[in-house]
Amino acid sequence: MIQLYIGNKNYSSWSMRPWVLLRQAGIDFAEVFVRFDGFGSTSQFKAALKDINPVGKVPVLVHDGLAVWDTLAIAEYVAEQFPEKQLWPQDRAARARARSICAEMHSGFTGLRSACPMNIEAQLPDVGALALRDKPAVRADLERICSLWSGLLQEHGGPMLFGHFTVADAYFAPVVMRLKTYALPVPTDVAAYMARVCALPGVKAWIDGALAEQDFIDFEEPFRLQR
Amino acid sequence: MIQLYIGNKNYSSWSMRPWVLLRQAGIDFAEVFVRFDGFGSTSQFKAALKDINPVGKVPVLVHDGLAVWDTLAIAEYVAEQFPEKQLWPQDRAARARARSICAEMHSGFTGLRSACPMNIEAQLPDVGALALRDKPAVRADLERICSLWSGLLQEHGGPMLFGHFTVADAYFAPVVMRLKTYALPVPTDVAAYMARVCALPGVKAWIDGALAEQDFIDFEEPFRLQR
Repeated sequence: MIQLYIGNKNYSSWSMRPWVLLRQAGIDFAEVFVRFDGFGSTSQFKAALKDINPVGKVPVLVHDGLAVWDTLAIAEYVAEQFPEKQLWPQDRAARARARSICAEMHSGFTGLRSACPMNIEAQLPDVGALALRDKPAVRADLERICSLWSGLLQEHGGPMLFGHFTVADAYFAPVVMRLKTYALPVPTDVAAYMARVCALPGVKAWIDGALAEQDFIDFEEPFRLQR
Repeated sequence: MIQLYIGNKNYSSWSMRPWVLLRQAGIDFAEVFVRFDGFGSTSQFKAALKDINPVGKVPVLVHDGLAVWDTLAIAEYVAEQFPEKQLWPQDRAARARARSICAEMHSGFTGLRSACPMNIEAQLPDVGALALRDKPAVRADLERICSLWSGLLQEHGGPMLFGHFTVADAYFAPVVMRLKTYALPVPTDVAAYMARVCALPGVKAWIDGALAEQDFIDFEEPFRLQR
């Protein structure tokens, strides 16, 4: 049985990726929730992960006693274990491209990520407008995301980035959440893709979970004093 | 024919990973050197990469017109294309662990990476000692690296992290370079592994190339005024 350790659904963009991947692919797993009470050495968060993962972060996938961490390694592991789910594109070039954009997400888009942290339940259009006005890195990241998605949707004909649902869509699902929360402007085809992502049962289940959480964690809330 | 676009061998830790992987595995490729003259939009660096990679970064692997970027995607691509090279461990659990630590490197170790940028030709023991004294994140990263390597060497019996040479060794080769340049203290078994990595023909060829470069790029030199 697969276990997936995750943080708060409202905030944890990295947890969202493998959770959505497993759920949308119909792979059975048990969710282990570890609340973001803090990331210091005395936090319950670190204590809960201590014996699972030497890095002390979520997400961690545990399968038959084997711990796999960091979203990319989890994605590769799940894709290997369940080849019938075709979680990477079957075509060699498309698969390489899908891995390229996931790796690009993994190490990049720091402008958007730092200015617009994931907060699914919040509506922060003014924060988004100010970030776009004042931060060239946010503008550059938004431009890159729109051209990337538009290009792939055109090339593969949709509805997902590489036709059917793959790791790439799970990987960019938290970006869809940010674009919505901060109301960043996108072209029509990108908006339509975002709506399709939100309507995926695996994504919808995560969003519902985030809305049900009703937690408020100060250090994850640079823009709100309360819910 | 595979082409690999890389930056300066003395500085570009990300370029080093796939170059060492290909070279050490005996895979034929052509190196395309793109000097780090700057990363602004008017740099020759960005101009050289403009039509190759929308992200405008190195490394990029180009194979039969297909561009693959970011080191992790390149590693997966090469491992898939050359299965006989066994670039990931054959054992399922070991392979998952190897991918976990590569992904961990890809998104982590920011303390060490920012305090001790790769500079193969330089000798900066005092900078290293000060970083260790003053920066808890550097101490934590060093501790994690040593325990990670020691554990794997013990578990798999060496000489490399997973027995034979894999992506993981290529991935941590630039870390070996940093530990040497900044003379960070490591236990005996880790020092022996570092020596073995440096003696790998693929790593030695990169180091020789770095030493032959004799370039000096101000923005890559926070600790030296000249060579």
